[in-house]
Amino acid sequence: MFTLIHKDKNSKARLGKITTQHGQFDTPAFMPVGTHATVKGLLFKDVREAGAQIILANAYHLFLRPGIEIIKKAGGLHKFMSWDNPILTDSGGYQVFSLALFRKMYDRGVEFQSHLDGLKHFLTPEDVIKIQETLGSDIIMPLDQCVQYPCTKEESRVAMERTVAWAKRSKDAHGEARGSLFGIVQGATYEDLRGDCAKRLVDMNFDGYSIGGVSVGESSNLIYNIMELVVGLLPLDKPRYAMGIGYPFDIVEAVERGVDMFDCVIPTRYGRNGTAFTSGGKITVRNATYTEDFKPLDPKCGCYVCQNFSRAYLRHLFNAKEMLGLVLLSLHNVYFFLDLMRQIRQAIKEDKFTQFKQMFLMDYNNQICA
Amino acid sequence: MFTLIHKDKNSKARLGKITTQHGQFDTPAFMPVGTHATVKGLLFKDVREAGAQIILANAYHLFLRPGIEIIKKAGGLHKFMSWDNPILTDSGGYQVFSLALFRKMYDRGVEFQSHLDGLKHFLTPEDVIKIQETLGSDIIMPLDQCVQYPCTKEESRVAMERTVAWAKRSKDAHGEARGSLFGIVQGATYEDLRGDCAKRLVDMNFDGYSIGGVSVGESSNLIYNIMELVVGLLPLDKPRYAMGIGYPFDIVEAVERGVDMFDCVIPTRYGRNGTAFTSGGKITVRNATYTEDFKPLDPKCGCYVCQNFSRAYLRHLFNAKEMLGLVLLSLHNVYFFLDLMRQIRQAIKEDKFTQFKQMFLMDYNNQICA
Repeated sequence: MFTLIHKDKNSKARLGKITTQHGQFDTPAFMPVGTHATVKGLLFKDVREAGAQIILANAYHLFLRPGIEIIKKAGGLHKFMSWDNPILTDSGGYQVFSLALFRKMYDRGVEFQSHLDGLKHFLTPEDVIKIQETLGSDIIMPLDQCVQYPCTKEESRVAMERTVAWAKRSKDAHGEARGSLFGIVQGATYEDLRGDCAKRLVDMNFDGYSIGGVSVGESSNLIYNIMELVVGLLPLDKPRYAMGIGYPFDIVEAVERGVDMFDCVIPTRYGRNGTAFTSGGKITVRNATYTEDFKPLDPKCGCYVCQNFSRAYLRHLFNAKEMLGLVLLSLHNVYFFLDLMRQIRQAIKEDKFTQFKQMFLMDYNNQICA
Repeated sequence: MFTLIHKDKNSKARLGKITTQHGQFDTPAFMPVGTHATVKGLLFKDVREAGAQIILANAYHLFLRPGIEIIKKAGGLHKFMSWDNPILTDSGGYQVFSLALFRKMYDRGVEFQSHLDGLKHFLTPEDVIKIQETLGSDIIMPLDQCVQYPCTKEESRVAMERTVAWAKRSKDAHGEARGSLFGIVQGATYEDLRGDCAKRLVDMNFDGYSIGGVSVGESSNLIYNIMELVVGLLPLDKPRYAMGIGYPFDIVEAVERGVDMFDCVIPTRYGRNGTAFTSGGKITVRNATYTEDFKPLDPKCGCYVCQNFSRAYLRHLFNAKEMLGLVLLSLHNVYFFLDLMRQIRQAIKEDKFTQFKQMFLMDYNNQICA
């Protein structure tokens, strides 16, 4: 499934390729998030044209609405949403933790109340695998238990133990032919718990390994340390995925530590709020300073938006509350993240990742575009 | 500017071509509306791909926001919005009538209060020409005075006389090199006033003629009668434009009476509300009946949306309040209107417009798609 193509000479950054039932994608990869079977506001042809090779969808949301039966009748998630490339689905563990009105964890599974209508549901790890297999996911996540930050060691240990037990049951329940299955490393900010979790999952031999429960409120340094620790315990021949990461600077730090896959709602969420990511930092297009600024969002960017529209026009759209403003900023941001990954892959190929990271962070942090 | 290519043998329907500074467009033509320099929610490349050859923008809205100076500095409206094809601009006469918080008409011009911030503005017919010339419009409308429906004959006469006087002043003020100028026929539902207005405008020799003040609440029959009467008084070698028309059935009726150009916000407005136009009538995608309907919106439609997505998926997007639902329905509807015009032009070419109209209305009115 994973082919390691090249390792950067001066860091742990890796260039790879992952093969799925719906084609390949290059790593390090960024997966735009399509929670409700849509990358918010964007046509899939534009998402694809921006360089997306794989997207993420949320099993929790799709289970609640429109419901798995409808997607099954549509011929699976790929057909339902008309995306013919790889899809990774999240198990819902994080959504039950962050969105559900109420949740109670048992060894047997999780009981929760839908954030949409308050109805109660009970899902076992086996149910969650079945749901994602029915969706037709190319990469499946097992049910896991997240904890808030900060969290006592004892609570973290209970959640980690349950995550490991559920990972085992998920592996047993998973039909080999239907999508790859990753193991999710939990353990909060406790190095020994993380290490223990990683080793036990590796022993079960998953198709890849996710680092879960990061970026839930802890400092960047804590995130990077945990990633470094966990990645060090994972086999070289399997992909590593940092769930929900992150900002551009988080991505380059994680790549340097050997992480291969990322997803985040940031590009579309910030786009809807009028914030553009650029090689020179973030821009808030509504600001009066852009009223007569006829430059593109990012003069270095090759996206449709930067090739066609000025900051002044985009500011006008946001001021006039025009939907196209949200669409164009989302599209630019998605392109920006995907283009960052292209640049990262090129730098690794040339054994120049460390220099690339330095240059990128210098421009990005100096706000040269603002 | 206007080339009459073919007249249908059995009706007054005409096939033509209009040449502007930004290229040609075929008539009968439908112009998607881009009020704030954006066809709501749609990328211009998709609007173009859907078949739009010309769009309409509103001078009133752009005058208020972002302001003409900014668009001038951007290099004109085409550059500002990145649309390199023809643009027709409305004069604002209708918006002053329908949107402004307050308005007072003088022979000299119109005083109104912005619907955005309550600020007072005074515009003469000469100002309105200057504004559209600065925007760089390919087809310019003079300031006119609309009246509500119903309206007394005396009020209608005063508004019509003012419209004619302003048309003359607009023509004198208009620099020949900068876009075509149409005359706008007013006169409410009074045949003699309409006739008088049309004749006097024709004597001034405009580049084309608009029928204004229709579809403001009067019955369809009244609209069709007025269009027939007015078109009968207009020269064959100039284009005729029915402003703000309309529904698909209104468009085919108007084409049959010799009208060449149309604009309407219906495709995007209905799209945002979850209503799709199809060859078999209108569909409200939110309806429960489409929950497991995996057919496209319109099985006869060749648009991106119908080629890729089912009613069940679109219903899901609207239920989940996903922006993409609004975007996709708007895109389908714009395509539907533009495709209707393509079919109309083909039918005229083959001298089969009357049969086409009958077949189209039969399917459309019978709701065969619902």
